[in-house]
Amino acid sequence: MPSSGLETVSQSKAFGGVQSVFRHQSVETGTSMRFAAFLPPQAEVAPVPVLWFLSGLTCTEDNFTVKAGAQRIASELGLALITPDTSPRGDGVPDDPDGAYDFGLGAGFYVDATEKPWATHYRMRSYLERELPELVADALPLDMTRQAVSGHSMGGHGALTMALRTSARFRSVSAFAPIVSPLNCPWGHKALTGYLGPDRTAWREYDACALIEDGARVPAILVDQGLADGFLAEQLKPELLEEACAGTGIELTLRRHPGYDHSYFFIASFIEDHLRWHARALAR
Amino acid sequence: MPSSGLETVSQSKAFGGVQSVFRHQSVETGTSMRFAAFLPPQAEVAPVPVLWFLSGLTCTEDNFTVKAGAQRIASELGLALITPDTSPRGDGVPDDPDGAYDFGLGAGFYVDATEKPWATHYRMRSYLERELPELVADALPLDMTRQAVSGHSMGGHGALTMALRTSARFRSVSAFAPIVSPLNCPWGHKALTGYLGPDRTAWREYDACALIEDGARVPAILVDQGLADGFLAEQLKPELLEEACAGTGIELTLRRHPGYDHSYFFIASFIEDHLRWHARALAR
Repeated sequence: MPSSGLETVSQSKAFGGVQSVFRHQSVETGTSMRFAAFLPPQAEVAPVPVLWFLSGLTCTEDNFTVKAGAQRIASELGLALITPDTSPRGDGVPDDPDGAYDFGLGAGFYVDATEKPWATHYRMRSYLERELPELVADALPLDMTRQAVSGHSMGGHGALTMALRTSARFRSVSAFAPIVSPLNCPWGHKALTGYLGPDRTAWREYDACALIEDGARVPAILVDQGLADGFLAEQLKPELLEEACAGTGIELTLRRHPGYDHSYFFIASFIEDHLRWHARALAR
Repeated sequence: MPSSGLETVSQSKAFGGVQSVFRHQSVETGTSMRFAAFLPPQAEVAPVPVLWFLSGLTCTEDNFTVKAGAQRIASELGLALITPDTSPRGDGVPDDPDGAYDFGLGAGFYVDATEKPWATHYRMRSYLERELPELVADALPLDMTRQAVSGHSMGGHGALTMALRTSARFRSVSAFAPIVSPLNCPWGHKALTGYLGPDRTAWREYDACALIEDGARVPAILVDQGLADGFLAEQLKPELLEEACAGTGIELTLRRHPGYDHSYFFIASFIEDHLRWHARALAR
């Protein structure tokens, strides 16, 4: 099914659909990039709407694909799932000098880096806003007029900021335990200083709360947050998103779940609600 | 909750229940062993029935736990899930001299080895038939009068043979893509020669088909098998189980699924059917 440029890494039937991992040469990152794609059985007869899922620190395209259990519901709802990697990888791609998990490989933060040596390869924003959508629109039976986006942690930040910047593209946005304001947490300070430099005005287009303060709007946001999440108080701070949305007309549904942590067991427990929420928006 | 002897490695809330990984010192294997345990919310008020899931070659307690999506249904049905490791591990535990995936570490084949140097540590049969059940019965809120067993590939072989040998223990048994007859496949020849020696009479209690030929009985068996499984013709051979069950009174439900391979995407696609099948037997 994929046209030239997409190489199939793996393919398995799942819930009546097909779960694939593809590889391709990216112009934006200058590297070979992988992404996972689930096509529900409905895609055999007509193009289907698509949910993008952006993953968190340390993840590849694999984590959500094998751990979240999303294919079952996507198959029922007729929804494609596209799960990109979280950074460029490979020869010549620089990593955190100390090999830390929260910068460099597996930690692209969904930005176009402007600082050396990151600016050459770390172009996840343009990769996800332009290159990969064009590629999958060409290669897979997707209805690109019906797109939604979700993500986890760093990927929740990616989903929220991408939806706020390109609101015409997505009919709905949700997130699990997102970093809602990189301007206001250690992960964000480290990543945005490294990729964008010390001038914080350049950070604002990569901060969901700042984007909303600066006038960006989406109709609604669904956020699930576990209250036993070890990153809640220092890094995630969902109350900042509540404050940013207040009075803006953005309908924020923020659900706080006692006992749940930051793991994929938390995502798996609530992914069905997210997919059904997106499917309702995509059906309108 | 666990009594002395069980150390908690990790614990996450999942689908209203609790997914744990425990570690303990095993008398049978002489090593530190890990296993995963999911307790559904119903276990907070009364002991719950338990499904044992035995995994395949190369797996640990982790694979089924993070990939199968079983917790969702187990939570609904009030079923505990116990997922052991597939071999002893650690200092002094011998491995395949060539590091092959199909013998030694991750490939205990659910036997009590009798050959040197394997006999000292490779005692997965006694570990699973005696030691671990006693341990979890003591430490967790399980109703041990209501046990069921399932497994995948090598673990399907483990589930079938353990159920046939100890039929009073289990109310039901199922398998995904099981090795139904180690006597009749390369994986089985290598493993049983290595662990038990060349005398094939000693192999028969580790061969589901031979056990049935020798008179072992269970009321019913549910087996799912993907027809795009690369191991189907050479290693798995479900037709041998059909032949063995014919005329015995064992009600074999063998479902062949076009397009499905040997992966956890296959297991995830059909795990709900298995859990509901076991829950019906456990409710009687």
